[in-house]
Amino acid sequence: MNLILLLDNDFVSPSCAIIRDRRRVRHIVDVQAAKVGDQLKTGRLNGWMGLGTITRLDDECIEFDLSLKDAPPAPLPLTLILALPRPKMLKRILQTVSTLGVKDIVLINSYRVEKSYWQTPLLTQEAIHEQLILGLEQGGDTQMPKLRLAKRFKPFVEDELPQLIQGSRALVAHPYHADECPRALNEPVCLAVGPEGGFIQYEIDLLTACGFQAVHLGERIMRVETAVPFLLSRLF
Amino acid sequence: MNLILLLDNDFVSPSCAIIRDRRRVRHIVDVQAAKVGDQLKTGRLNGWMGLGTITRLDDECIEFDLSLKDAPPAPLPLTLILALPRPKMLKRILQTVSTLGVKDIVLINSYRVEKSYWQTPLLTQEAIHEQLILGLEQGGDTQMPKLRLAKRFKPFVEDELPQLIQGSRALVAHPYHADECPRALNEPVCLAVGPEGGFIQYEIDLLTACGFQAVHLGERIMRVETAVPFLLSRLF
Repeated sequence: MNLILLLDNDFVSPSCAIIRDRRRVRHIVDVQAAKVGDQLKTGRLNGWMGLGTITRLDDECIEFDLSLKDAPPAPLPLTLILALPRPKMLKRILQTVSTLGVKDIVLINSYRVEKSYWQTPLLTQEAIHEQLILGLEQGGDTQMPKLRLAKRFKPFVEDELPQLIQGSRALVAHPYHADECPRALNEPVCLAVGPEGGFIQYEIDLLTACGFQAVHLGERIMRVETAVPFLLSRLF
Repeated sequence: MNLILLLDNDFVSPSCAIIRDRRRVRHIVDVQAAKVGDQLKTGRLNGWMGLGTITRLDDECIEFDLSLKDAPPAPLPLTLILALPRPKMLKRILQTVSTLGVKDIVLINSYRVEKSYWQTPLLTQEAIHEQLILGLEQGGDTQMPKLRLAKRFKPFVEDELPQLIQGSRALVAHPYHADECPRALNEPVCLAVGPEGGFIQYEIDLLTACGFQAVHLGERIMRVETAVPFLLSRLF
């Protein structure tokens, strides 16, 4: 937790917040070993960041006097279209992309996504929110990413993607018959990443028909959770 | 498993191998749904890669007729000095760096590495070997990385590192008072990555005295397992 992320209902006034939930209190007391008078990096969800001075602290709650005047880090100019990963990996990937500054995520279906993955309780709004918050706390950011689900591949690609990629460079990560992934782009990107095993050819064909360029990362095949930070580092 | 990695004792002759261990047999039969006559991407540990044609297959063993004539992917010109991560993360990171083509790994101690981490059974030679093999099978590579442990930070940095970094660009990932991480280098690199929470200033001072340049990846603080692929993608 590199940033104490305060939610609206933690605020008593614009310059005072009290946190009471066990997870954050334990972290600040046990891991950070903070005490009254300490200044911690703090931010308001979807708002400014700065310093919070601890004015009261016990096992139940921590009170901060706040000075939040800094803008959060700039978001990545990216829409990430990600084939729904298996639940255990989904959790880590949501945290990772939130940490890395992705603000626009679409989880889509794909031929190689197991149907059961769509049943995971990790896809409830609350569970997604929780993982994205953990990612923001790690990265030191306050801006909550938007995430939506697209459970049908073809209608999404044919009916929604063409509009979604307007004004963006549209890329799909694909290890075969692809161009080398470009570096350090200075433009908005829409990036599609397939499931373990990759998109099938039919899906690649639909994406390229829609305007996507297939790009590879070299000879080595990465797991999705490795490929995502690798791609974002390459692209921006 | 994007490559069936054959060990020396799987070989009956240079062009014939039989695998009998449950893990690989189950994967090939259940996940890949392979049958007699199928050709799978195959390689010999520390040797060539190519195709293996299944000539016999049952629930206990699979026999391949081999044609291994291709070189494995080029290794990354990198020595990775990594502060020992907590065990659960160690497992994933070993797989990841093996997948990404790192061939030279030193796990070192650091002030913020918990002493208990050095007791994990994951540090036995056998357990490390297992994770690195999984990484090679994922990446599609045959060359086993070398890994060593350096349990004392100062003697390692002062007595061994100066020689180890000769002819290399020496970089330490550090979020504060650092230069922007360079991109697409065309030279050997020695990269040091700290534990969660980072190296302490004293350690950074020792490393810079030894010739390391501190480099950052932007404002966001990443978990080690995110930072490593992010760094490798940026550097090469």
